[in-house]
Amino acid sequence: MPVNGMSIIAGRASTDTAAPFHSLNPATGEGSRHAYHAASSAEVDVAARAAADSFDEYAAHPSESKAAFLERCASEIASLGDDLVEMACWETGLAGPRIAGERDRTVNQFRFFAAMVRDGGWVEAVIDRGDPTRKPMPRPDLRRMLRPLGPVAVFGASNFPLAYSAGGGDTASALAAGCPVVVKGHPSHPGTGEMVAWAIARAAGECGLPGGVYGYLHAGGMREFDVGRELITHPGVRAAGFTGSPSGGMSLANLGASRPDPIPVFSEMGSVNPVFVLPGAATADGEAIAAKLHASVTNSTGQMCTCPGLVFVARSSSSEAFVRSLGARIDATASSVMLSPRIRDAYLRRVGEMATAAGVGVAVVGEGLGSSRGEVAASGVLARPSMLTTTFEAFVRDRTLREECFGPSIVVVWCDEAEQFIEAARAIDGSLTGTIWADAGSEPDRVLAGRLTTALERKAGRLIFNGVPTGVEVVGAMVHGGPFPATNQPQTSAVGTLAVRRWCRPVCFQNYPGDLLPTELADGNPGRITRMEDGRLVVP
Amino acid sequence: MPVNGMSIIAGRASTDTAAPFHSLNPATGEGSRHAYHAASSAEVDVAARAAADSFDEYAAHPSESKAAFLERCASEIASLGDDLVEMACWETGLAGPRIAGERDRTVNQFRFFAAMVRDGGWVEAVIDRGDPTRKPMPRPDLRRMLRPLGPVAVFGASNFPLAYSAGGGDTASALAAGCPVVVKGHPSHPGTGEMVAWAIARAAGECGLPGGVYGYLHAGGMREFDVGRELITHPGVRAAGFTGSPSGGMSLANLGASRPDPIPVFSEMGSVNPVFVLPGAATADGEAIAAKLHASVTNSTGQMCTCPGLVFVARSSSSEAFVRSLGARIDATASSVMLSPRIRDAYLRRVGEMATAAGVGVAVVGEGLGSSRGEVAASGVLARPSMLTTTFEAFVRDRTLREECFGPSIVVVWCDEAEQFIEAARAIDGSLTGTIWADAGSEPDRVLAGRLTTALERKAGRLIFNGVPTGVEVVGAMVHGGPFPATNQPQTSAVGTLAVRRWCRPVCFQNYPGDLLPTELADGNPGRITRMEDGRLVVP
Repeated sequence: MPVNGMSIIAGRASTDTAAPFHSLNPATGEGSRHAYHAASSAEVDVAARAAADSFDEYAAHPSESKAAFLERCASEIASLGDDLVEMACWETGLAGPRIAGERDRTVNQFRFFAAMVRDGGWVEAVIDRGDPTRKPMPRPDLRRMLRPLGPVAVFGASNFPLAYSAGGGDTASALAAGCPVVVKGHPSHPGTGEMVAWAIARAAGECGLPGGVYGYLHAGGMREFDVGRELITHPGVRAAGFTGSPSGGMSLANLGASRPDPIPVFSEMGSVNPVFVLPGAATADGEAIAAKLHASVTNSTGQMCTCPGLVFVARSSSSEAFVRSLGARIDATASSVMLSPRIRDAYLRRVGEMATAAGVGVAVVGEGLGSSRGEVAASGVLARPSMLTTTFEAFVRDRTLREECFGPSIVVVWCDEAEQFIEAARAIDGSLTGTIWADAGSEPDRVLAGRLTTALERKAGRLIFNGVPTGVEVVGAMVHGGPFPATNQPQTSAVGTLAVRRWCRPVCFQNYPGDLLPTELADGNPGRITRMEDGRLVVP
Repeated sequence: MPVNGMSIIAGRASTDTAAPFHSLNPATGEGSRHAYHAASSAEVDVAARAAADSFDEYAAHPSESKAAFLERCASEIASLGDDLVEMACWETGLAGPRIAGERDRTVNQFRFFAAMVRDGGWVEAVIDRGDPTRKPMPRPDLRRMLRPLGPVAVFGASNFPLAYSAGGGDTASALAAGCPVVVKGHPSHPGTGEMVAWAIARAAGECGLPGGVYGYLHAGGMREFDVGRELITHPGVRAAGFTGSPSGGMSLANLGASRPDPIPVFSEMGSVNPVFVLPGAATADGEAIAAKLHASVTNSTGQMCTCPGLVFVARSSSSEAFVRSLGARIDATASSVMLSPRIRDAYLRRVGEMATAAGVGVAVVGEGLGSSRGEVAASGVLARPSMLTTTFEAFVRDRTLREECFGPSIVVVWCDEAEQFIEAARAIDGSLTGTIWADAGSEPDRVLAGRLTTALERKAGRLIFNGVPTGVEVVGAMVHGGPFPATNQPQTSAVGTLAVRRWCRPVCFQNYPGDLLPTELADGNPGRITRMEDGRLVVP
C-alpha cells in the first residue's frame, strides 16, 4: 500500500488522533478504502518546531547541496510512476494524460529550481565597495543578497493535486530559497499528497538533510480548517503560500497579518480571465477562435485558475456567428467530472446567480444545473459547461458577473461597439490573465489592441495575444499572479523564477570581514555567480 | 514668501478649508507667522483623481523623459538653496549642517533614481522565446518586465523633513517607477514640505508632464489624520509608503488591507538597532567604541530610524570600563532640541517605562526627564540623552525593554557571558540594523561573530561590522528594511534600487506582436538595456 494515512513529521510517520477522514473518487462516488488521520494540534506544533529547528542548518547548506536535494525530489516523484498517476486520477477525477502531464510539470519544476539554485544569480548579489577617502565620512562597503525567511506553510490547491500541492511550485520554490516547508494537505487528495510527501521526505533523508526540512500534515474532517489555522499562526512559521478561493485566501492572509509578528501570506485566488475578441479577429478567425476558446473553457472541466470566464464581443454578424459557434460547441459538450461535490455545488450556485441576474440571457446551461446539489450520483460528480450572455450595461452594473465562477462557464458580454472594450477592461477586477484576439491585417484591430493592452495591463499579470489563457509555462518570464482578487500580493508570481522571491528578503552586510560574508558576496566571486559590483554587472 | 500654506493639486495651489494650523519652531517655541490650510475631503478626492487620470500618460513616457524629470526635481530642490535649509531648521530644530547634508542626499537621491531609470535594467526584463515545434503543445513566446502600480500615497516622516518627506525616497522611487505621487504633508514641517513640493510641481510643468503626476496635501490640526485616511482609502490610490511609528504604520497598513480592493502599504516603523560588543572588542577598543556609540546615540538628538537603542555586553572589567565611558559621555551631553513636544513627551514616557521596569538600573537619565510634559519651555523642546542598564534575564522577561524608544536613549544589557548574545539576538524583534563589534585578532570573537551573524541575520535588514548603525547610503546594495516591527513588508527596502520595486508588479506578454510590446521587451533590444534572453544575460 503506497500510503498509510499518517502525517509526516521530521521524516517519520506520525499520528495521534482517532478522527479519521476518507477521500472520494468523484468519478464513481466511491470512498477511499483506508482512512487518513488529520494532524492534531500537538502534531502541528511539532512539525512547525521541527521546521524552525532545521532552518539554520538547511539555510547554511551550500547551493550545490540544495540543488542536489531538489533534483532528488524530482527523481523520487518521477519514480512513483503509474501508482502516483492512478492515485491522483482516483482522487480528482482528472484524466490520466492530464495528470501525467501535471506530474511531468511538477518534476520539471523541481529541476527548474535546481538549475536556478545552481546558477546562483537569483540571490541578486549587489556589491558596492567602500571609499575610505570620501569626505566628510568614509563610504562603507555594502553588500546585499536575498536570504531565506524561514519555515514556509504551504496550502495546496484542489485543482492541481501535483503542481500546486505537497510538491508543487510553492514547495519547490521555498525549498530552493532555503526555507523548510510544512504542507497542510488538501482533504480532497490526501493519498496523492502523502505519496508525494514521502518522496520529498525520502529525498531529504538521502541528501542528509534534517528531517524538519519538510513536513506534511493531513487535514480533513473536523480538523480541515484547524490544521491550517494552527499552522499559519505558529510562531515558527515565517511565511505562507495558498492557492484556492478568495474567501480562503483572504482568511489566511488576515490570520497572517493579525499575528503579534505579522508574516507574509501569498494567496492566489479568483480570476475571471477576460478575453476580448476584436472585430477584425471575429471576422477573420471567428470559427477557429470559438474552437480554441471552447477547448480552454472545458479543459479539465473548467477547473483551471486561468479558465476564461468572460468573452467580450462587439455586435456584428461575424461576432454573432462566433458566439453561435461557441454556444453550439458548449452545448455539444458531454458532462464531465468535477473535483468534489463542494466544487460542483459552488459551480452550480454561481451559474445560477449569474443566470438570474437582470439582463442575462441563458444561452447554454447544461442539464443537471440546479439539481443534485450536495449529492454524488452513482455516476459521479458530474457537470456540464454553460454559456451565458449579457450586455455591456448589465456587466458594468452587476458585480456578480465580474466575479469568478470556478468551473466550465463562460459569460459572453455583448458590447455595442468595440470602443466599449476599453471601459470593460477598466471595470473588471484583477485577473491572472487578459487575452486579446486581433487580426494582424486589420488596422483598427491593431490600434484598439494597443489601447486595450494599456488598460488590461493594469488588471492582469499575463497578457495573451491571439491565444488562450490556460497553459502556464514554468520559465523565467512567466508571471502567474495579478492584482486583487487574483492574488493579494501582485508584486509576485506563483510560477517561474519570481516565485522564489516570496520566501526571501534582502540582507545587507556593511564593512563585513571576508570570512564572515556569505560565499555569494565574497571578494573574488568564489561562487561564480552573476552579480552587480560597483554598478557593473559581472557575469562569471 | 516662499510658501502660501496651500496644498498643490494638479500643479496649482488649492485651498477650500477655513481650518488653519501653524507649525512650531521647537528650538524657540515660536509659532509660524502664517497659517497652513489642511486639505479638505474634496481636495483629497481631486488630488487622487488627478493622479489617477495622469497615470497612463506618465507611465507611457519614455525612460529618458522620466529620468530628465527626476533630474529636474533634483535641480529645482537644489536651487531652493539656503531658504530651504533655513525653513527646515526652523521647523525641526535640527542643525544647519545636518539639514544641508540631508538636502544633498535628497537631491542626489533623485539623481540616483534618474540614473537607474536611464540605465533601464531595473525593469528586470526577461525574454523566453517560444518553440513552435515543441510537442505536444508549442511553447509560447513569453516576455516579462516590471510595470508601475499606479498612484502612490506618500506619508512623510517627522525626523527627515527632506529625505523621507515631500521629495524623499518614497516620492523619488515611485516617480522613477512611473507612478504619480500624492503626498500627505507632515504637520511638523509643512513649510519645508510645501517648498519641496513646489519644486517638484515646477519640474513636472517644465518637463511637460501632466499636473496630476505630483500632488501635495497639507494635513494638520483637526484634519491631521483624516487627510491620510481619505487618501489611502481612495479608489484611485494603488499603493502607499509610510515612515513613522508602529501604531501609525500598522493603522495605515490595515486601512490598505481592508479596502474592497486591498492595496500594498509599505510601512517603515520602529527599530531598536541592537549592538553587540564582543569581549575581545571591549578589551581592545572599548574607549573608541564608546565614543562612536555615543555619537550615534545622540546624533540629531537620537531621532534617527537607525539610532542604536540596545547594547549587549558580557561581564568583564573591560566591559565595565566601556560602559562607564559610555555613561560618562552621555552624562556630559548637553540637552538638545527634539522635533516636537509630542515626540519629546513620547521619549520621556518611554524612558520612564523602561526605567521603572523590574531589574533596570538608571545609569544616566538627564534632568528634565519626567518634567515639563506637554509644554514647550521658553528655551524650546529640549531633552537630554539617557542610559539605562539591565540584565539579560530582565531583558528577555520584559517586553518593554525590547521596544523602540525614539530619542537619544540606550539600554545596556549585561549578559553573564558572551554566549548569551545568541539567545539575546533570538529574543529581539525585527530591526532595521544589527551591529557586531569584534576584535579581528581575537579567535573567540571571530567564532562568536559568525554565529551571531546567523542569528542577527534573521532579525535585521542590515548587519554592521565594527561600525555604527546611523548613516544610510543611497546605493544599490543598501537595505533599509527588516522584519516586523521594523517594517510590515520585509521583502523590500525604503532606500536604494530595491525601493522602486515596491511600486511595481511584473507583467508578462505572451505571443505579443513586436509593435505592441514595450520597448524594453522588443526584439533587437532597442532600449539597450540589460536583460535576460533565453536564460542568458544580455548586457548591451
